[in-house]
Amino acid sequence: MNSLFQLSSLSVDEIQHLLDVAEQCRQGRFIDSEKGKIVANLFFEPSTRTQYSFNTAEEKLGMKVINFNAQASSMQKGETFYDTVKTFESFGIDAVVIRNRQDEYYKQLQGRINIPILNAGDGKKDHPTQSLLDLMTIRQEFGHFDGLKIAIVGDVKYSRVAHTNIEVMQRLGMQCFISGPEEYRDPQYDYIDFDQAVKDMDVIMLLRVQHERHEQAMSLTQEEYHARYGLTLERVKAMKDTAIIMHPAPFNRGVEIADEVVECRKSRIFKQINNGVFVRMAVLKRAMEGR
Amino acid sequence: MNSLFQLSSLSVDEIQHLLDVAEQCRQGRFIDSEKGKIVANLFFEPSTRTQYSFNTAEEKLGMKVINFNAQASSMQKGETFYDTVKTFESFGIDAVVIRNRQDEYYKQLQGRINIPILNAGDGKKDHPTQSLLDLMTIRQEFGHFDGLKIAIVGDVKYSRVAHTNIEVMQRLGMQCFISGPEEYRDPQYDYIDFDQAVKDMDVIMLLRVQHERHEQAMSLTQEEYHARYGLTLERVKAMKDTAIIMHPAPFNRGVEIADEVVECRKSRIFKQINNGVFVRMAVLKRAMEGR
Amino acid sequence: MNSLFQLSSLSVDEIQHLLDVAEQCRQGRFIDSEKGKIVANLFFEPSTRTQYSFNTAEEKLGMKVINFNAQASSMQKGETFYDTVKTFESFGIDAVVIRNRQDEYYKQLQGRINIPILNAGDGKKDHPTQSLLDLMTIRQEFGHFDGLKIAIVGDVKYSRVAHTNIEVMQRLGMQCFISGPEEYRDPQYDYIDFDQAVKDMDVIMLLRVQHERHEQAMSLTQEEYHARYGLTLERVKAMKDTAIIMHPAPFNRGVEIADEVVECRKSRIFKQINNGVFVRMAVLKRAMEGR
Repeated sequence: MNSLFQLSSLSVDEIQHLLDVAEQCRQGRFIDSEKGKIVANLFFEPSTRTQYSFNTAEEKLGMKVINFNAQASSMQKGETFYDTVKTFESFGIDAVVIRNRQDEYYKQLQGRINIPILNAGDGKKDHPTQSLLDLMTIRQEFGHFDGLKIAIVGDVKYSRVAHTNIEVMQRLGMQCFISGPEEYRDPQYDYIDFDQAVKDMDVIMLLRVQHERHEQAMSLTQEEYHARYGLTLERVKAMKDTAIIMHPAPFNRGVEIADEVVECRKSRIFKQINNGVFVRMAVLKRAMEGR
Repeated sequence: MNSLFQLSSLSVDEIQHLLDVAEQCRQGRFIDSEKGKIVANLFFEPSTRTQYSFNTAEEKLGMKVINFNAQASSMQKGETFYDTVKTFESFGIDAVVIRNRQDEYYKQLQGRINIPILNAGDGKKDHPTQSLLDLMTIRQEFGHFDGLKIAIVGDVKYSRVAHTNIEVMQRLGMQCFISGPEEYRDPQYDYIDFDQAVKDMDVIMLLRVQHERHEQAMSLTQEEYHARYGLTLERVKAMKDTAIIMHPAPFNRGVEIADEVVECRKSRIFKQINNGVFVRMAVLKRAMEGR
Repeated sequence: MNSLFQLSSLSVDEIQHLLDVAEQCRQGRFIDSEKGKIVANLFFEPSTRTQYSFNTAEEKLGMKVINFNAQASSMQKGETFYDTVKTFESFGIDAVVIRNRQDEYYKQLQGRINIPILNAGDGKKDHPTQSLLDLMTIRQEFGHFDGLKIAIVGDVKYSRVAHTNIEVMQRLGMQCFISGPEEYRDPQYDYIDFDQAVKDMDVIMLLRVQHERHEQAMSLTQEEYHARYGLTLERVKAMKDTAIIMHPAPFNRGVEIADEVVECRKSRIFKQINNGVFVRMAVLKRAMEGR
């Protein structure tokens, strides 16, 4: 059963194959290829990109889509997460897409839910389809991964995007660094000074300052953060000619990224969002194999 | 016009026929058989099973589905329930599915709304599709209804499931009992001691303790309820070999049902949920007749 | 690119053509004619009629529909309106339908979003599809616009319906008046006494008292409003034989309109709602041209 919980469980070959399928999707293949299959989107955390990108991918594949609204569900009467997922399985549908605030929520489902589960983000742990769309964007740009240098800048400690990306990018031969305020650093990764990173990297990947996840306030004001770690137009000028800017979004304009940088020539931010639809088509197709 | 408000308005033959159609649906018939028809789901109370089970049934039939979100609607500007339903009728759609907190809400619609209305639960009165899925589950198990003994245990007084079920089950020849705390009993039904029921019944149907419906607190703590009326593994062992456990869900694990009983060999709880999709396909097909 | 922001940007010929297409839609044409196209509904204000009428129109055209729920989106994390729309464009969809509280919200999108945008209402400025359905209803009734007299009664100052309607109706040769309490009048329009209007007009269009938009309380009580400006059964009797009653809804029964007038012989209120689906099909078809 082709669930997808963590990218770390896929081999390099499997990942490259998923990216190949995603490229075919981008070229217009596989429209309505999963007609008749039913999928439910269970999002227990606010989401725009991941949720509606999955929704768009499902529609492109011709699937029948059930969108769950947790706020108006029996969870208001105390129903548990497991029982909610088990209910959808019992409807006889073909797959569920799940986002949940809890790290590794899927461990309580494994072996008990017998339809494919696609992880659309668990707590601060994993976000496999986000990493896939990042990889697709990098591969489109450079044609390969080997030897490329990336710095992931900002709230690395609490970012599922950072954790998932660094693990898989290292396996693909990339050199990964982190940068940003000391309080956000994860000591297991190589640190690089931000202005040094701007000059040396092939990819600068910015992370959002996640105001809503931090109980305590950040030690820097937003203005200080922007001055020290924000990607300004001046810093963009210091980047290598071939280097690109990425961000999983949503972004805080004027904090980690200057307003005028969001859609600048080096930015691939909206390209990433576009690729998100195609990698999600690819993982949905994989989940439907043999059903 | 084939609305469905109350099961009590259907003859025994009509009910058996609906169950026959539901069985055909379970065997994979009628997929996309209502292509082009448009249905709207109007849920004014939180729901998981009923709402998304109708949604799944509609998708399986190939219908076009409009899901109404009351929280972001003109009801926020004071629009009435009747005017909301009349608006959907005016769109020219083919049917509406409605859940509403008010007992017999449909009386204000009858004769004024000229498309089929499927009742997905009204206050503490009726829940016809829930009863149909219960009947389908019992018929699958025993092949007939006549002479079977059922005890419905718990919050009978405020349960639309209990009222609808007892009326129709008695017509089908079943012997119905109620059990549970004195404050929840309805004097019009035969009472049976819970431990006696466990030994004698063919079906033990548990009801959820509806914390959110009771203005006053229950006189028992959750632990006391579980000790006296909870279906524990010990009590399951005292049940007849052929007897089964049912629950309309959502359930409170550790209150009316022990955690380890939910998915035990005798439990038909998730089977009921599965059947829910098929009985809803059947009532939707009935509603579409002649349209 | 066939966006629709304001009706004032369409010529009289273009408007008549849209109404012709809408009439064909009413006669059952164009079902599933836009199969495969993807549209997203982005409603940032509560809505029943406009939102679900667009949704129904999209389903009738066979489009794939993405319904955005702002309350459970990344806007909760501070994402801006522009970035939200840009995200949907980046998914590669074919059009967006937008309602937003801000007057002329679309000015920040023009030239930056490269898919058609259909305005489903901006602040107190415009509501082009509402005007189109009003025009369709009037044309069905009288066969023409030229020389018809309409009075728009009530909260004209803050009504996008009134502003949009008067501009286009005057271009189509209608004589437009306003009536209602002094505090709601817009001095640029011709005022007429309400009881005079009732006797003279071909169309009485009532507006909803928008309790939720007014910071300060209305100077009249609801009873006083009803006595002076409410369309009562007595006033209906004073109307011309051929005259009709319109209201964009939602309405306040017993305030601007008597309960028993809502569905009386002269009322076209639910006819308007029905026509809403067809004009939205027409503007969606126009938006899809050349895609």
